[in-house]
Amino acid sequence: MNPTDYDLIVIGSGPAGQKAAIAAAKLRKRVAVVDRRLMIGGTCVHTGTIPSKTLREATIHLSAFRDGNFYGREFPSREEISVRDLAFRVQAVVTRETSVIQAQFKRNGITVHEGSAEFIDSHTISIAGTDQEREICAEHILIACGTRPAHNPDIWIDGKRVIDTDQFLAITQVPRESIVVGAGVVGLEYASLLATLGSEVTLIDQRSTILDFVDREIVEALAYHLRRVRVTFRLGEKVTHVEVHEERERLFAELESGKKIQGDVLLYAAGRQANGDQLRSEAAGLQPDERGRLKVNSSFQTDIPHIYAAGDVIGFPALASTSMEQGRLASCHMFGAPCEHMPELFPYGIYTIPEISMVGPTEESLTQNKIPYEVGIARYSDLAKSMMLGDECGMLKLLFNRHDRKLLGVHAIGARATEIIHIGQAVLAHCGSVEYFRDAVFNYPTLAEAYKVAALDGLNKL
Amino acid sequence: MNPTDYDLIVIGSGPAGQKAAIAAAKLRKRVAVVDRRLMIGGTCVHTGTIPSKTLREATIHLSAFRDGNFYGREFPSREEISVRDLAFRVQAVVTRETSVIQAQFKRNGITVHEGSAEFIDSHTISIAGTDQEREICAEHILIACGTRPAHNPDIWIDGKRVIDTDQFLAITQVPRESIVVGAGVVGLEYASLLATLGSEVTLIDQRSTILDFVDREIVEALAYHLRRVRVTFRLGEKVTHVEVHEERERLFAELESGKKIQGDVLLYAAGRQANGDQLRSEAAGLQPDERGRLKVNSSFQTDIPHIYAAGDVIGFPALASTSMEQGRLASCHMFGAPCEHMPELFPYGIYTIPEISMVGPTEESLTQNKIPYEVGIARYSDLAKSMMLGDECGMLKLLFNRHDRKLLGVHAIGARATEIIHIGQAVLAHCGSVEYFRDAVFNYPTLAEAYKVAALDGLNKL
Repeated sequence: MNPTDYDLIVIGSGPAGQKAAIAAAKLRKRVAVVDRRLMIGGTCVHTGTIPSKTLREATIHLSAFRDGNFYGREFPSREEISVRDLAFRVQAVVTRETSVIQAQFKRNGITVHEGSAEFIDSHTISIAGTDQEREICAEHILIACGTRPAHNPDIWIDGKRVIDTDQFLAITQVPRESIVVGAGVVGLEYASLLATLGSEVTLIDQRSTILDFVDREIVEALAYHLRRVRVTFRLGEKVTHVEVHEERERLFAELESGKKIQGDVLLYAAGRQANGDQLRSEAAGLQPDERGRLKVNSSFQTDIPHIYAAGDVIGFPALASTSMEQGRLASCHMFGAPCEHMPELFPYGIYTIPEISMVGPTEESLTQNKIPYEVGIARYSDLAKSMMLGDECGMLKLLFNRHDRKLLGVHAIGARATEIIHIGQAVLAHCGSVEYFRDAVFNYPTLAEAYKVAALDGLNKL
Repeated sequence: MNPTDYDLIVIGSGPAGQKAAIAAAKLRKRVAVVDRRLMIGGTCVHTGTIPSKTLREATIHLSAFRDGNFYGREFPSREEISVRDLAFRVQAVVTRETSVIQAQFKRNGITVHEGSAEFIDSHTISIAGTDQEREICAEHILIACGTRPAHNPDIWIDGKRVIDTDQFLAITQVPRESIVVGAGVVGLEYASLLATLGSEVTLIDQRSTILDFVDREIVEALAYHLRRVRVTFRLGEKVTHVEVHEERERLFAELESGKKIQGDVLLYAAGRQANGDQLRSEAAGLQPDERGRLKVNSSFQTDIPHIYAAGDVIGFPALASTSMEQGRLASCHMFGAPCEHMPELFPYGIYTIPEISMVGPTEESLTQNKIPYEVGIARYSDLAKSMMLGDECGMLKLLFNRHDRKLLGVHAIGARATEIIHIGQAVLAHCGSVEYFRDAVFNYPTLAEAYKVAALDGLNKL
């Protein structure tokens, strides 16, 4: 082998790339990260998770004031809260997170190359797009180049009234009426954000049901809450044409069924396209699929064993959380550090308002697999903490085996669901039983108490 | 035995009484609860945990607006947020929680008697204080009568400028300068609440250190944050005299050391006196100690085996969370339902701002017991979620065995510490290792991620 510049080149600095680079650096390897200028942290930091979740936190924080029932009066008024206030928060967090990542790279002696990466051969990468083109080579390469919004030939994205999720932050005021196309996780998150900000949202999807992998009771609760903030669902419907009336500042979406929906903004949030098609990976002997994705084995190796891939570019589950772990495990594997395989048990977090989280199988999948179970439910309206937080609509549901009382799954909707799900996850991972929750003491007042309430409910049914 | 009205009379409807009554009702027993009029839910709901924690949530919520860095401008101004707004929230939550408890009692067929309970004999209780005095008798009695603020002969509580914690809600405006006497959990919680509301607080305690049972690093972080909001600590100092200048609307506290401290309000928060002395328990053959507490065995039986006691009236740890479990276990024991003993492992939640939570031993106690350990730390400033929430000062610390990597303890300060501590508690209870956190996938962004960051930090040291 030729002498190499690095032990590892990581293409992309999103969650997978970051954690891979840091894990390799901790093993005292020479590591370089390549990403486009101003994109350190990847889509996650700049247009995806971080901005949307920051907007969400700020919106939840501000919306308590909208509710006259919260402090007995409404202040500040809706007019006083501008998109500018929200954008300030987003910019502050994006800047801070970017500098945290840069500091981590620096502290761990990781070299950052700014520019677009393309393969020259299976060990060599060219970096273009800045002042001069360079080539660097390494023994191992990790592709963690992420995804971009997918587009649809029938819906022309003009970046002004018809936008994709990358352009969401360009909105300068809350649209009175919005159309969101795509009712997957991302579409639902933006729809609930817009609705909580006061926009009247129509949500359109070709599928006739939403969130098929989530417990039905939880999904129906979400649908109920979204309808209460005036979201209209148009499921099993397809947008065939979008017309923008610039002078009237309105747009119209025509559906295959003949319906015509109007709004001020249309957000296209139906799927993402992986960036595996933009690396000239053929030069390394790799062939991404038609959606730009790369195939890997359980150790995250592509068909070329010294080239790994991790994160959204390899497809499902495409969560920041799983991508981080994939990146870390890829680095451990390539350098022979002891490592586990990707855990089969991982939580899903869906940052709608209210938020959803789950770990383990749903009632539907247990029934399908003929695993008998019992259910214990806690309603947030019975918890002191949720009253204090002003969120009484949540619930937590435990599924457990009737015979040995082993915990099978946890499903939650409501404030902090994405945090407290990890309590159930820890018990599941240790093959614990629902009796653990009955017998444990939980801080009062907390939302975590829901576990105890749900366990008592479930065990009382036996 | 004589025919009885009930299988169980519960004296007090706070956390211990509630859970005992409900557990007995679930076992199909005839249950009565006795509490004073308008006090359903006990001190916890009316003057203790619920009001103070609701005030705290509202204060945290509002204080983000004070911070010009949060939204880039300050709105509404301090003047716009009144104690009236806070009091509205408190009243709403207290009313709601009271009705939740009443509904639970009703749903479970539990009879509520309003009035003050006194023993006639070991099976009979008289209820006074309402329209007419009644007597009821039962096979079992549970004493869960709680505590009241302790008073000090040197400090005259006038209920206006010199108040105890029961009177805190009578404050109609945020005092410019406050004196808090007692730097235990309760004193610290009120001191941090007042300071966050903008009051300049002097905190006085005879002891020279605070929170002896809490990890020193966490306590020092709390002290640092309290000083940043202008809390002055006067430890190892004793108040000898308090003088109120009514015309100048000021008061002066003289300390044994000769110092003189002035303020607008003095809050006396040094200890609580148990109400065991108010039940004429001698008539049942019971003798409370000089602080009004009752002695029980590990099944919560007093010296009279059919009379149980639970909650704050039996002393340490006197947390709402542990009291609930004590009440439930007492009922299970008296009616022969299968039950565990009180778990040795339980979390502490301290609702200062920032909040503190811990489970398992501290570094100090491990060192004292010669148990070698390693430490893994996560700082909230490295977590995306804490940036979104505007709380970057927190930290989470894992203590684990260097050899087998078993988790030993978890100590946290910062937003949602009281929630996420239960993740560590579940792993501890199942004898899990710190490697669990390294290998688990955590929702992103969450504060629970701190476990993974801390585990990687700790394991990198081995």
